[in-house]
Amino acid sequence: MRTSPAGTPLGDAFHVYDTTLRDGAQREGISYSVPDKLAVARLLDSLGVGFIEGGWPGALPKDTEFFQRAAAGDLELRHSTLVAFGSTRRAGVQAQEDPQVRALLDSQAPVVTLVAKSDRRHIERALRTDVAENCAMVADTVAYLVGQGRRVFLDAEHFFDGYAYDPDASLRVLEAAMQAGADVACLCDTNGGQLPTQLAETVTEVIARTGFRVGIHCQDDTGCAVANTVAATQAGATHVQCTANGYGERAGNADLFTVIGNLATKLDMPVLPDGNLSELTRTSHALADIANLAPDTHQAYVGTSTFAHKAGLHASAIKVDPELYNHIDPAVVGNDMRVLVTEMAGRASLELKGAELGLDLSESPAAVTGAVRRVKELEAHGWSFEAADASLELLLRRQVAESGEHNSGGDTERGMPAAPFELESYRVSLDHRPDGEVVSEATVKVRVDGERVIATAEGNGPVNALDAALREALVPRLPWLNEVELVDYKVRILTDASGTDAVTRVLVESRDEEHEWTTVGVHGSIVEASWLALCDALAFKALRRDEVVSGASA
Amino acid sequence: MRTSPAGTPLGDAFHVYDTTLRDGAQREGISYSVPDKLAVARLLDSLGVGFIEGGWPGALPKDTEFFQRAAAGDLELRHSTLVAFGSTRRAGVQAQEDPQVRALLDSQAPVVTLVAKSDRRHIERALRTDVAENCAMVADTVAYLVGQGRRVFLDAEHFFDGYAYDPDASLRVLEAAMQAGADVACLCDTNGGQLPTQLAETVTEVIARTGFRVGIHCQDDTGCAVANTVAATQAGATHVQCTANGYGERAGNADLFTVIGNLATKLDMPVLPDGNLSELTRTSHALADIANLAPDTHQAYVGTSTFAHKAGLHASAIKVDPELYNHIDPAVVGNDMRVLVTEMAGRASLELKGAELGLDLSESPAAVTGAVRRVKELEAHGWSFEAADASLELLLRRQVAESGEHNSGGDTERGMPAAPFELESYRVSLDHRPDGEVVSEATVKVRVDGERVIATAEGNGPVNALDAALREALVPRLPWLNEVELVDYKVRILTDASGTDAVTRVLVESRDEEHEWTTVGVHGSIVEASWLALCDALAFKALRRDEVVSGASA
Repeated sequence: MRTSPAGTPLGDAFHVYDTTLRDGAQREGISYSVPDKLAVARLLDSLGVGFIEGGWPGALPKDTEFFQRAAAGDLELRHSTLVAFGSTRRAGVQAQEDPQVRALLDSQAPVVTLVAKSDRRHIERALRTDVAENCAMVADTVAYLVGQGRRVFLDAEHFFDGYAYDPDASLRVLEAAMQAGADVACLCDTNGGQLPTQLAETVTEVIARTGFRVGIHCQDDTGCAVANTVAATQAGATHVQCTANGYGERAGNADLFTVIGNLATKLDMPVLPDGNLSELTRTSHALADIANLAPDTHQAYVGTSTFAHKAGLHASAIKVDPELYNHIDPAVVGNDMRVLVTEMAGRASLELKGAELGLDLSESPAAVTGAVRRVKELEAHGWSFEAADASLELLLRRQVAESGEHNSGGDTERGMPAAPFELESYRVSLDHRPDGEVVSEATVKVRVDGERVIATAEGNGPVNALDAALREALVPRLPWLNEVELVDYKVRILTDASGTDAVTRVLVESRDEEHEWTTVGVHGSIVEASWLALCDALAFKALRRDEVVSGASA
Repeated sequence: MRTSPAGTPLGDAFHVYDTTLRDGAQREGISYSVPDKLAVARLLDSLGVGFIEGGWPGALPKDTEFFQRAAAGDLELRHSTLVAFGSTRRAGVQAQEDPQVRALLDSQAPVVTLVAKSDRRHIERALRTDVAENCAMVADTVAYLVGQGRRVFLDAEHFFDGYAYDPDASLRVLEAAMQAGADVACLCDTNGGQLPTQLAETVTEVIARTGFRVGIHCQDDTGCAVANTVAATQAGATHVQCTANGYGERAGNADLFTVIGNLATKLDMPVLPDGNLSELTRTSHALADIANLAPDTHQAYVGTSTFAHKAGLHASAIKVDPELYNHIDPAVVGNDMRVLVTEMAGRASLELKGAELGLDLSESPAAVTGAVRRVKELEAHGWSFEAADASLELLLRRQVAESGEHNSGGDTERGMPAAPFELESYRVSLDHRPDGEVVSEATVKVRVDGERVIATAEGNGPVNALDAALREALVPRLPWLNEVELVDYKVRILTDASGTDAVTRVLVESRDEEHEWTTVGVHGSIVEASWLALCDALAFKALRRDEVVSGASA
């Protein structure tokens, strides 16, 4: 049984320890199924973290099942070592007779992290015992698990508050564990109230007084979990406990990706297997998907906005020297630099954006003028292209096509393909019938290849019915539309600047086998807004398909 | 003209400087109108920050107009001093002849913050001049503005990167400004690449070498903007530039509210007027509203989840001793402790939640059992009550009413009021007509007070039409429903655990003159999900009204 990180240059000398599946799962809104948990573990292993804490076997049925499936071969780890989390034996019971301790062994995880209280007030007031008995519970359990061939880490809960209140009592808990055979004394800022300076002082002092291998586990209640984790590392901690995207109870935990980014790019610590740092952004977004949470667009290192530039001041200067305006090359962490389209930037931004999308607009001045005007008009009515690159690309191409100019560069001959279909009308009806049944039905009348087609379909909701009717009408003529899958659908109600009527902005994220793209629609009616975004999504597929077809024939 | 903070115990000795309206506005997705900007400034003044940077007059038309309206009396500040941001004169032009400098004076702001490059590479490569000319531009502009009676701060852009590359060149820029009469040399980590330890060392060194009053401005590209700001303060900086909720370009800026929370509660610095710290949470949420962004539920100090407890481990212990599980008393910053309802918690959580909602469920064991079962069933189908307290309260009260038990305590006699109406059926139709017109129409058939009512209304979308038809039917009989206003409406598409059909979860936020409440609905159809949330919203209003009426008659 491997009990150390595999494949990282630092080996066992430094532990990147992920607790997304246990502490991260306590975030409000997260509810992992067992397949979710397996998927999370595979992604973390593929990134190359040293340890994956899989949950609390025996306490939560899903966690028990996760370890069973992992042991049965559903989870093969290349880099990471699986860890089971649990508590020490209860007071007055022998370790080997405590069913919770038994469950830790049954999990077959090669490493066990035991949580123990290390604040005298918690020991006395919440646990209702004394420091001596608490230490005996820790020592017995550690010794028993080590005797059973497990590597054991200690999570010293509430350590920093406890150490400030009664340092000797807190150190006694660490000693009990380490003398019984634990390998790491992980100091937890459970309530998250620490600031980096004081926390680093405590870490330095604990290492000086004990000589133990020390780890760090920070919550983000002062907004300093990442800084605290880094400061502890600089003070000598060699084991950092983090969660993906900082998921966790209350304000969350130290974000695994930001901590890795800081250690790797700022402190030159090769904490991941060679070449894996560029997987940081992709892994972060995939883990957000599994958690069913929108990725934080402004997250350090991995956010989609994190290397995006907006202000006029920078947008012009950045053309000269991109490295003067980014703290690192975004490609290092698998991210990239985007330029935003907003009222603050205008022409220069739109040209840069065009270049980013593969459109050289330098020979299309009228198209740029038209696009700037059109974007401003639409933005004044609640449209936003910042997250909808596909709709923006369609808008730019339509302007180029209308202006009669050609964009040169890599795609000289490429204009705007004709829309795959034209709408005549649609009608959607939604009935909540007296018997309680709810029915959605849509009819569309469209023109495809000059032919008029009418189709009707039902759906589980109005947008779904409309999408179904449209596919019913189009797929017999345009079978490639079937490759387009609706991935996500976001709705925002906006009150426009004039403060009159609310409008609805819909973002539709689509994918085919190779790409994902986002389109936008805005309207007073959510169904019409969805329709507009849906039409752009299909038009974009037609455009990409046109490229592939032209490319293949060139 | 006041040029110092008013009403804070620290007076001019420490500056809390807000740049939401300038640097914060560069966040992707933010677009402030002039009334928005005035509303932001009023909230910041009411919280009691020392300085409000209002924008860049002369560069952005909205900013110019904001200062005009402020000067015309549209903005009366009790605590804060208004600041105009701008750049130094251009190369080869006299300060008094530079229109940008002129615009700073015209703004009538008593304080001007001048941005200047302080990294030799930026001076040479982006500005295409040399350090000497850059210093002359800084010194001339500062001297001119000071001569015109303005207090001047310097924003030394890219200072930390510049200081690491060529410390003397960077210090020369500070000297040019301070010797010409600037009051604060604000060191900016413009690219946001700093970590607290190194940043604090630089701040200490700069203060030691120059004796200048130093400020700090941090971007969050390492996830350490807050920690860096606090570390700089501990190293001697007496002026901190922040933005509301950390809004800003890329990963954002140091969050004003977290910085204030840390300085006030961890370093005992009274940086706000007495009594204003408890306005922190409310101000943060109001500023998110104006920015039209969802508040970050996990934001330190002010997030709605930030003092919420989920795990079984804590939920039971927290009953004993809440202060052992929170790093501060949430009331200090105007926040409060919530208990979450999830599969992880069960009975104990639901009882605590009941208590929080004013329901003593200790004498309603059958109702609690029923509620736990019902919550689990609904959660398995995509419902979530974590953000929908009003729907949860209705669910609990319905269970109490069904069980025949009475909840005792403050509201012994209060059961569940009858639903204000019963639905027979509804029908919504949406037409996109051949002429391009889009029309939504809804018909509802309901029973109110035993009477059958049919009403039809149009709306700008299906939900709006349904809401309008329902009000049409009910308001003549229940006129108090008119007090209910729909504030926000959030939609999430969920794929349920079985991976079959997608369902839509709708959260509806409603308010009357006194309260705001959130309700939830889940269904395959977005319209039915909205309908369910809407019905709960009205039922909750009926419940609250019932309380007021009973209370008044008691």
